[in-house]
Amino acid sequence: MSIEDMIRQMAVDAKEAARGLRRVERPKKDAALNLMAARLKQRKEEIRRENAKDVSLARDNGLSGSMVDRLTLTDKVIDEMSAGLLEVAGLPDPVGQVTGMWRRPNGLQVGRVRIPLGVIGFIYESRPNVTVDAAALCLKSGNAVILKGGSEAIHSNLILAEILRGALAETGLPERAVQVVPTTDRDSVTSLLKMDDLVDLIIPRGGEGLIRFVAANSRIPVLKHYKGVCHIYVDEEADLNLASEVCFNAKVQRPGVCNAMETMLVHESISETFLPIIGKRLKDAGVEIRGCPKTVAIIPGAKIAEESDWPAEFLDLVLAVKIVQNMDEALDHIDRYGSNHTEAIVTKNYGRARRFLAEVDSSVVLVNASTRFNDGYQLGLGAEIGISTSKLHAFGPMGLEELTTTKFIVYGDGQVRT
Amino acid sequence: MSIEDMIRQMAVDAKEAARGLRRVERPKKDAALNLMAARLKQRKEEIRRENAKDVSLARDNGLSGSMVDRLTLTDKVIDEMSAGLLEVAGLPDPVGQVTGMWRRPNGLQVGRVRIPLGVIGFIYESRPNVTVDAAALCLKSGNAVILKGGSEAIHSNLILAEILRGALAETGLPERAVQVVPTTDRDSVTSLLKMDDLVDLIIPRGGEGLIRFVAANSRIPVLKHYKGVCHIYVDEEADLNLASEVCFNAKVQRPGVCNAMETMLVHESISETFLPIIGKRLKDAGVEIRGCPKTVAIIPGAKIAEESDWPAEFLDLVLAVKIVQNMDEALDHIDRYGSNHTEAIVTKNYGRARRFLAEVDSSVVLVNASTRFNDGYQLGLGAEIGISTSKLHAFGPMGLEELTTTKFIVYGDGQVRT
Repeated sequence: MSIEDMIRQMAVDAKEAARGLRRVERPKKDAALNLMAARLKQRKEEIRRENAKDVSLARDNGLSGSMVDRLTLTDKVIDEMSAGLLEVAGLPDPVGQVTGMWRRPNGLQVGRVRIPLGVIGFIYESRPNVTVDAAALCLKSGNAVILKGGSEAIHSNLILAEILRGALAETGLPERAVQVVPTTDRDSVTSLLKMDDLVDLIIPRGGEGLIRFVAANSRIPVLKHYKGVCHIYVDEEADLNLASEVCFNAKVQRPGVCNAMETMLVHESISETFLPIIGKRLKDAGVEIRGCPKTVAIIPGAKIAEESDWPAEFLDLVLAVKIVQNMDEALDHIDRYGSNHTEAIVTKNYGRARRFLAEVDSSVVLVNASTRFNDGYQLGLGAEIGISTSKLHAFGPMGLEELTTTKFIVYGDGQVRT
Repeated sequence: MSIEDMIRQMAVDAKEAARGLRRVERPKKDAALNLMAARLKQRKEEIRRENAKDVSLARDNGLSGSMVDRLTLTDKVIDEMSAGLLEVAGLPDPVGQVTGMWRRPNGLQVGRVRIPLGVIGFIYESRPNVTVDAAALCLKSGNAVILKGGSEAIHSNLILAEILRGALAETGLPERAVQVVPTTDRDSVTSLLKMDDLVDLIIPRGGEGLIRFVAANSRIPVLKHYKGVCHIYVDEEADLNLASEVCFNAKVQRPGVCNAMETMLVHESISETFLPIIGKRLKDAGVEIRGCPKTVAIIPGAKIAEESDWPAEFLDLVLAVKIVQNMDEALDHIDRYGSNHTEAIVTKNYGRARRFLAEVDSSVVLVNASTRFNDGYQLGLGAEIGISTSKLHAFGPMGLEELTTTKFIVYGDGQVRT
């Protein structure tokens, strides 16, 4: 069987499974999730054995230490995956929620009801625990999922999927609701991206290269996340201690993630008091500062920023800093260089806080809080399958609701159109 | 300037206009819409003069009478376009609506707010009044729009756009919020579909060929509508008079539209009483019936349906009819041949009504009402820019809300992540 035929068969099976899942009520889905959690713990040794194959191949292939770390399924990681399944079981089921209902003048009662999307293709790199997370969120939201993980995690992903599917079968749910593509051939990705008659949504998760490849080659809608070039604007009326805490947290607490601050914009009138304080603190934490000429004149040791630093996602202990004359200049800078991901203002001024919230065109806009809060759990969605920086369907963190759509239902009494 | 450069410049201008529109409150948008309505009436003669060029070219090119009719802007059509603008001005503004707000344990107040999508590319065929409708809905929802109409309507579209833009300028709104592609070259479409860095959404409206072309070539998300193969299932416990009214309306009232019934599924136990009644009524209205063998045995003059009739969108006075043994067979038939557009059940049975609503995977599912109600106005959305049969972002009729997305706003007091 060719790769394309294999993927088509998987998609056909997924669509059939999705049809079955549409009718399943919450208790059965939760029972399956709970059973999956138990089975993962019971079959730890098998998981570790299969994972060891991936880890050993990764070492042979010269993968970096941090990549091998992310690949490794320790007892602790397996326990966390199991706990994650229980957490998803505890979340409310979005399917069947009535998001609105109204009456028309002719007596029709019209409502909108949440339904699953159908079949989701999930394409990701590296960490095999994503296999379990994604499967759990798709199942809970009533969707079948086809998982295409990184080639370096193939043995781990296959054993995890086998365990999850066993639990589905034991619960009487369609096994094919969770499928892992059993090959590392990249053609399997291009084939999957063509199945627009069977697959409803593609979610890529990984580096910018993967995401651009998927977006450019997919005939299926893609929920994508390119990059997070997140800004904090420190206003002339900022509480400088608060600003220092928020900016430090946003840059240093976890610099390698998409919601870390990459550029700090500082109002001119406070720059000479604020920048020395935050500059020292950041430098003590190992942050390299690349600033506009005025910044460099204030922070000792800061380098001059190049044009390419303003739109950069450093994902590292590097920060671009620019002094601005007013909030308008900050807003212009964000519009020009930002990625519509996450921006924050630090201010005590009510009007500018409101204006910043209204005018910044990003998926999450904050006042007096760290950009690091752009996260499904932190914002109260209960879970997160990714962050979308495009505006269609979902903008910002995606939880269970974002894996559903709504249909209209209409209760009539014989109404016809005239 | 090449076509691609021209389209890119239009998209850049549209993005800039969209940035301006984001900040505009409702009264100004409504003022522009009201002014557009007045200007259309005042400049009727100019409109008719430009339209006459299109009509005359269409006749020279041998377009059918019905196509020339659709192209022609009579005084009445211009008055309707003007009234449509006033109607959109009267609709609530979705932008700025808070769709939810909640408090996190750390004190963060998190909300979701509706915002415009940004730049919309609208690609359509024939009727020039769509130019005005689409521009009005995009403006009201805060979006800039690039309109690519059919080549046969180019003179009409250009004069209409000029009038709309004049009204924008008079109101102090960005003129480039409404742009008509000033060429009939098809390369302009392929160019537009590549501008995924500038355009947020493509809406194609027209025949299946156009829509498939757009979907296959776009790197921008597309809200599309392939076809409506709509079913009505007449249950064993149907009120047969009500069933006859609903089915007759769904097939005959306007057979050329996507929400007309194309296949009727009839429960076996009532087929011998129901089919002769509805069969005669349909035949008297000129409907050709293509049925399963059992149907043909009951309705005199019915033809045997071929396999290709079950998934067919006839858009004409033709109806496929199948007798089913129970609702499960009807549901299976819909899953196999349907287009996820609109399906209805006629029944007095409470349980089956509820089950049909829950299990049918279509954008609009009705009980005891005509499929013809799948329409933004009829369902109470106030307006309609199209009907989506794909599930991402919008499923079913799309009104103003569907031309927006939501962003998260967060009110904090110095919160950081630990």
